Amino acid sequence: MTLLIDALLDELVVRALAEDLAAGDLTTEAIVGPDERAIGRAIAHTALVVSGGDVFARVFHAVDRGVRVERFKADGARAEPGDVLFAVEGSTRSILFAERTALNYIQRLSGVATLTRRFVDALPQGSALRIVDTRKTTPGLRALERRAVRDGGGFNHRNDLGSAVLIKDNHVAAAGGVRAAVERARQYAPHTSRIEVEVDTLAGLEEALAAAAEVILLDNFGDRELEAAVLRAKGKAILEVSGNVTLERIPFLSTLGVDVVSVGALTHSAPSADFGLDIQPLGSA
Amino acid sequence: MTLLIDALLDELVVRALAEDLAAGDLTTEAIVGPDERAIGRAIAHTALVVSGGDVFARVFHAVDRGVRVERFKADGARAEPGDVLFAVEGSTRSILFAERTALNYIQRLSGVATLTRRFVDALPQGSALRIVDTRKTTPGLRALERRAVRDGGGFNHRNDLGSAVLIKDNHVAAAGGVRAAVERARQYAPHTSRIEVEVDTLAGLEEALAAAAEVILLDNFGDRELEAAVLRAKGKAILEVSGNVTLERIPFLSTLGVDVVSVGALTHSAPSADFGLDIQPLGSA
Amino acid sequence: MTLLIDALLDELVVRALAEDLAAGDLTTEAIVGPDERAIGRAIAHTALVVSGGDVFARVFHAVDRGVRVERFKADGARAEPGDVLFAVEGSTRSILFAERTALNYIQRLSGVATLTRRFVDALPQGSALRIVDTRKTTPGLRALERRAVRDGGGFNHRNDLGSAVLIKDNHVAAAGGVRAAVERARQYAPHTSRIEVEVDTLAGLEEALAAAAEVILLDNFGDRELEAAVLRAKGKAILEVSGNVTLERIPFLSTLGVDVVSVGALTHSAPSADFGLDIQPLGSA
Amino acid sequence: MTLLIDALLDELVVRALAEDLAAGDLTTEAIVGPDERAIGRAIAHTALVVSGGDVFARVFHAVDRGVRVERFKADGARAEPGDVLFAVEGSTRSILFAERTALNYIQRLSGVATLTRRFVDALPQGSALRIVDTRKTTPGLRALERRAVRDGGGFNHRNDLGSAVLIKDNHVAAAGGVRAAVERARQYAPHTSRIEVEVDTLAGLEEALAAAAEVILLDNFGDRELEAAVLRAKGKAILEVSGNVTLERIPFLSTLGVDVVSVGALTHSAPSADFGLDIQPLGSA
Amino acid sequence: MTLLIDALLDELVVRALAEDLAAGDLTTEAIVGPDERAIGRAIAHTALVVSGGDVFARVFHAVDRGVRVERFKADGARAEPGDVLFAVEGSTRSILFAERTALNYIQRLSGVATLTRRFVDALPQGSALRIVDTRKTTPGLRALERRAVRDGGGFNHRNDLGSAVLIKDNHVAAAGGVRAAVERARQYAPHTSRIEVEVDTLAGLEEALAAAAEVILLDNFGDRELEAAVLRAKGKAILEVSGNVTLERIPFLSTLGVDVVSVGALTHSAPSADFGLDIQPLGSA
Amino acid sequence: MTLLIDALLDELVVRALAEDLAAGDLTTEAIVGPDERAIGRAIAHTALVVSGGDVFARVFHAVDRGVRVERFKADGARAEPGDVLFAVEGSTRSILFAERTALNYIQRLSGVATLTRRFVDALPQGSALRIVDTRKTTPGLRALERRAVRDGGGFNHRNDLGSAVLIKDNHVAAAGGVRAAVERARQYAPHTSRIEVEVDTLAGLEEALAAAAEVILLDNFGDRELEAAVLRAKGKAILEVSGNVTLERIPFLSTLGVDVVSVGALTHSAPSADFGLDIQPLGSA
Repeated sequence: MTLLIDALLDELVVRALAEDLAAGDLTTEAIVGPDERAIGRAIAHTALVVSGGDVFARVFHAVDRGVRVERFKADGARAEPGDVLFAVEGSTRSILFAERTALNYIQRLSGVATLTRRFVDALPQGSALRIVDTRKTTPGLRALERRAVRDGGGFNHRNDLGSAVLIKDNHVAAAGGVRAAVERARQYAPHTSRIEVEVDTLAGLEEALAAAAEVILLDNFGDRELEAAVLRAKGKAILEVSGNVTLERIPFLSTLGVDVVSVGALTHSAPSADFGLDIQPLGSA
Repeated sequence: MTLLIDALLDELVVRALAEDLAAGDLTTEAIVGPDERAIGRAIAHTALVVSGGDVFARVFHAVDRGVRVERFKADGARAEPGDVLFAVEGSTRSILFAERTALNYIQRLSGVATLTRRFVDALPQGSALRIVDTRKTTPGLRALERRAVRDGGGFNHRNDLGSAVLIKDNHVAAAGGVRAAVERARQYAPHTSRIEVEVDTLAGLEEALAAAAEVILLDNFGDRELEAAVLRAKGKAILEVSGNVTLERIPFLSTLGVDVVSVGALTHSAPSADFGLDIQPLGSA
Repeated sequence: MTLLIDALLDELVVRALAEDLAAGDLTTEAIVGPDERAIGRAIAHTALVVSGGDVFARVFHAVDRGVRVERFKADGARAEPGDVLFAVEGSTRSILFAERTALNYIQRLSGVATLTRRFVDALPQGSALRIVDTRKTTPGLRALERRAVRDGGGFNHRNDLGSAVLIKDNHVAAAGGVRAAVERARQYAPHTSRIEVEVDTLAGLEEALAAAAEVILLDNFGDRELEAAVLRAKGKAILEVSGNVTLERIPFLSTLGVDVVSVGALTHSAPSADFGLDIQPLGSA
Repeated sequence: MTLLIDALLDELVVRALAEDLAAGDLTTEAIVGPDERAIGRAIAHTALVVSGGDVFARVFHAVDRGVRVERFKADGARAEPGDVLFAVEGSTRSILFAERTALNYIQRLSGVATLTRRFVDALPQGSALRIVDTRKTTPGLRALERRAVRDGGGFNHRNDLGSAVLIKDNHVAAAGGVRAAVERARQYAPHTSRIEVEVDTLAGLEEALAAAAEVILLDNFGDRELEAAVLRAKGKAILEVSGNVTLERIPFLSTLGVDVVSVGALTHSAPSADFGLDIQPLGSA
Repeated sequence: MTLLIDALLDELVVRALAEDLAAGDLTTEAIVGPDERAIGRAIAHTALVVSGGDVFARVFHAVDRGVRVERFKADGARAEPGDVLFAVEGSTRSILFAERTALNYIQRLSGVATLTRRFVDALPQGSALRIVDTRKTTPGLRALERRAVRDGGGFNHRNDLGSAVLIKDNHVAAAGGVRAAVERARQYAPHTSRIEVEVDTLAGLEEALAAAAEVILLDNFGDRELEAAVLRAKGKAILEVSGNVTLERIPFLSTLGVDVVSVGALTHSAPSADFGLDIQPLGSA
Repeated sequence: MTLLIDALLDELVVRALAEDLAAGDLTTEAIVGPDERAIGRAIAHTALVVSGGDVFARVFHAVDRGVRVERFKADGARAEPGDVLFAVEGSTRSILFAERTALNYIQRLSGVATLTRRFVDALPQGSALRIVDTRKTTPGLRALERRAVRDGGGFNHRNDLGSAVLIKDNHVAAAGGVRAAVERARQYAPHTSRIEVEVDTLAGLEEALAAAAEVILLDNFGDRELEAAVLRAKGKAILEVSGNVTLERIPFLSTLGVDVVSVGALTHSAPSADFGLDIQPLGSA
């Protein structure tokens, strides 16, 4: 499910390559002849869900358009330790130049996809509850990390501050109340956006319902409060849960009848997936 | 210890802001008046080591040069839950526009510093063993993450492929042996660079010593092999350990007499530090 | 109602200045001394609605941080011929360098605001009908033109392809029907987005209603069809009219009971507003 | 007559695509399968003169190098309603991603070419009078709009402030007179540039002639003044007319014997040409 | 005579700083405390003509807005060995970070100005002969090098391929003759541009005169041919000499009566001017 | 020995092309038909060492991907006057658009390689003395100029301030002595970097040796002092000579037993190599 357009990917990739290669590669230039050719195989070292295959390929192409990249696992597929995910073939120098940057992308993105998959797998079979991301993404990598969440079976929240309305406590304070805040937002926002309100008490929930918010974010609610909230609001608004959402709590949350659980950790605290690039010389061209 | 120059920080920060704000902030524009002013306080929610204070400030300045930022904790300082690290004062709109992007930076960078600190704190008092980072950094954030490692009490490995020589197995294969690889690298690299060779067996260590490598990276050695390696090579080369370096293994490693332990996880798998921005209205300007 | 953040405005403005000034200004460099100072007044030559005041100011600041810019009319205000909108004071050279680029911005943006105002003024007093823009904006100027529409009293449609769902005929064809298309979109899109469907017949309207689309775009409907559509769907979905929307047709449309009228011409065919910069020498500094 | 070099076009196009696609295309990603293929035909909805064919093609290529673009009408050609100008063939997703941005370019550029053509067609057969543009171009699009003017049969004025001298009233005031201004400019400017002086009275014309200006811009002259000016200066300098130049006034101006008429409206107030992209599915790849 | 606008200078300067500082400054960070302050004085080591003072200042400001820069010699002034040209005061770290990049700019630009001055000084007192540059500039530095030529008392040729017409042998061949080439160019180019033709024989000169070229470039003419050319064409066209123009040949050329001598070496082969930055500690802030 | 990755070269090249072509090429557009094809041959006009072949090719490709470039001399090869180094074949327009920018690159880079070669050739056969560059490079061209030094048979010094330690007088002053400076640097820098200290007296040399500096830069030493320094320090540290290094002094320096001679002039004062592009029409496509 490739989404990011070529030209925007290229811009990202060049900046990352410049961090590692702006002054060349002393070791490879010194030792590896310019005509040597090799094949490299990207191998999973742990069980993981793949994400970032197109970025991986573009890093090699940005270094050298002549490197051929083959993919054996699509984004979103599961891989076991030892599985070969990609093969790259071309100039040994080019492969060594690009290796680290390409791996840095997929280890992070597959890490996000893998953690998301764990949350999604914690849901009962057939559950309609959505695991969604937040805007707590790595600066510069939002588009890629959001796609990784989808690759892991999760869903996206709004992309940015300009794509949908989410009214928080500071907005309510500035407006002098939930109703006024919702009215101003409804009057201002495109007619394509729903209005979401964040509340942290059952009283706040009442206000949000009274203001006819279409989505209500129950922030840091305890288990009992969540049950009360669902009893009160189910069917009247889309209900989203956030705050203290651990993997362990997912089964409980899935029984409640809420619609969405948003998890900042998917993007801000996913451990890297572990990959290596196995390089085999093919001799001189 | 501010290092990154103003102009390069600005370039980074603008790209991150564009991800969140290129289409404006529907909610804040709708609800918060342009003349409202506020003060925001960035508060640690968990114990952490601070990193990224200058980026935090620049995000607000890139949004609005009129926002005043005050710092209460320098980079590298420890903070306890509830500690106020920064205060920002200015237009409420500007503060809300910048909030998420600014927090996204410091939560990641302080996460790296905090994890590094845990590794460093696992060393015995006065140990000269260096905990160092690797090139497994987040694409686009290398300079900031390397500084975060230093803020946590760690050290940096080479910055990029062009700043020092590190000979790995593929280079050795291309050269036809360790000695030839070292000779080519010594002949090519600036006279300011040491030559480092990665080995994964004791036999490899012998070859590296024979080639007079100045730094030897013992990759994925078991405990017994490490002991043998140190016995053999101590004082003959700078010894670096990498591979399977967990927090638990640091005390053992610190007793061996190696010089450097490199830990990819410092930058690729540090969980985010947890921050909030507490915003208080100051009324209309 | 300033929205665009400083740093993003600066990026826009530098590119525009480079078009006019990358090779300097032969005439001004030759003739005007570097120490001459002047005051310039931007004057409306026709009746107009102001937009782009902050870009105007930033163009001068990008040329020379020492130029002082004062604003006499806020964005969204009406101006009559002869009204002074802005004053700039500083180096005569800097003012002449920046003049054309600064005027090129406000003449276009105020043109968009002025045309929008004409559409809005054609509505009956108190009408809740929204005049909205489309994605038919000038490449590179979308954020500024959308704001100009708001400055003229209009509203914005979705900002971009990633911020909300709008299902068109090609999507329906690919899905094999309206219902399937809506279901796939609802399943995929963030829970913050409404689902809009474009239809061009009354039969299409039925399908969209059956699929529970929240917004329905009636494209190129004749007057009688529009009346039938409103009769059928009013209150069941937000109704948007587009296609052949002229100023003359607004009064009729305002009586129908539709919610939104989208007008591509607001951004793609607004004639420039007419401005001049009157420059008075202040002597040598 | 393709002029703009590939690499500069690509930079332009990426920025425009980022406005629409930085967060992906929710609708198309949700509904259209990644292997679907289609052919799209860009069709003129009104009579127009084509401009921007290469930008149109590059937008598709920036999204996806695999889209094939065919052109049926060269830049500068006239098209009638219903004429197919371009065909694009490839991934349906890619075509839908690029559609709006590609159309936004050609609708504006063809609008400029079409308006220019109307001015040129208002000249008597064989007239040597030049219709030229001004620096009142859209910020960021100057090179493309100037080419569109040529595609419409018009000519270009100087490209930017650094490419030729045009002395205006503020310069004359700074120099203390026309003669001094011309002398300073002639002394400073490259020997490849003519010296042009703008005058707004017949007295100014005398001064410009006395200073041996090679081009004289008669700004906002009435009909009688223009006749007097031509009688006086014909053959002594290139005469350019500007200010209040409407389509209706062109026939009169063409009889006078002036050499150049500059028309800001060509670029700042051309209504968009009207295009659509007709997309036909080709099935799954 | 500062010409380049602030924002464009900043873009240049950041790229140059990134070459030297993207990975920080190991030595200064290690040794110099963040609160140390110093004053640095840029001193001429040889006799030179100053150029690039504003770039010098901006490099320091891009590193740290708090560094104060004072100038003692304007661009275009002569300096003797030992003269202090600039003083910078602020953080010692910032001064050391910026030092090399700032010096790299002024040593090159002052080198160009100094070499130009030598050519200009070789002219007899009061000579109207122009020493001009060519398009043989350093990639990325054209605007700055052209200004350096003016700082040295020289003049500029056309800035770029789009600002004036210069017909060379390949153009003549493509057109099938000088006359046709001149006619096509006159028909195409803005009316603000003169038409220049390059010729390398006296026969070519005849053709250029017959075609009424306004500027004629006598390329690689010997001394006798030049005399014949001037005799023939003086007063009929502006005469430019290029090819094999050494400092030694300037006195001869100045007696001929040609108008312009263009010298590629001014920008492509000027030896660097020699500067040092003398830094004095001011203690801790 | 191609090193710079494709994507970074492209970024460089586009900026240089924009200086010359942002406003098109008036002459070529006017005169040369869009379907004309030609072959151009880049010819050495003087004896030189080639550098920059890949940049030369990329300039043409950035203008027009359809131009074919063939290389007859690799980087680092010597060429005699009249030798054909490259051939380019394709659209005549594209070749003429790219010509100057492409030549500007190779004339400077081959100039650097040629001057370096002269220094290297001044060494006795088999000498191990390294001729190295400095950080006195042209802003924006460091990577290319460093490679040109290698193409000429020279070696590189550290690439930038972040890749190795070089302690100068200001650092020593800030630390309060050589020993303290070296200790701080050793404690801070990556374990992959040697520590270099610059000294300008024999007393300084003693301090550097006492501090166990691995590289010592003897700055501006006279001949007798150099002899004394070598006698004292040979074998105890790598010895580098800098300051007043002329071609004439190389033979003397080569007899001393120092290891490295650094020469700023290699990059800051190399005269351009002289090239022409000979273009032959191939007729219309």
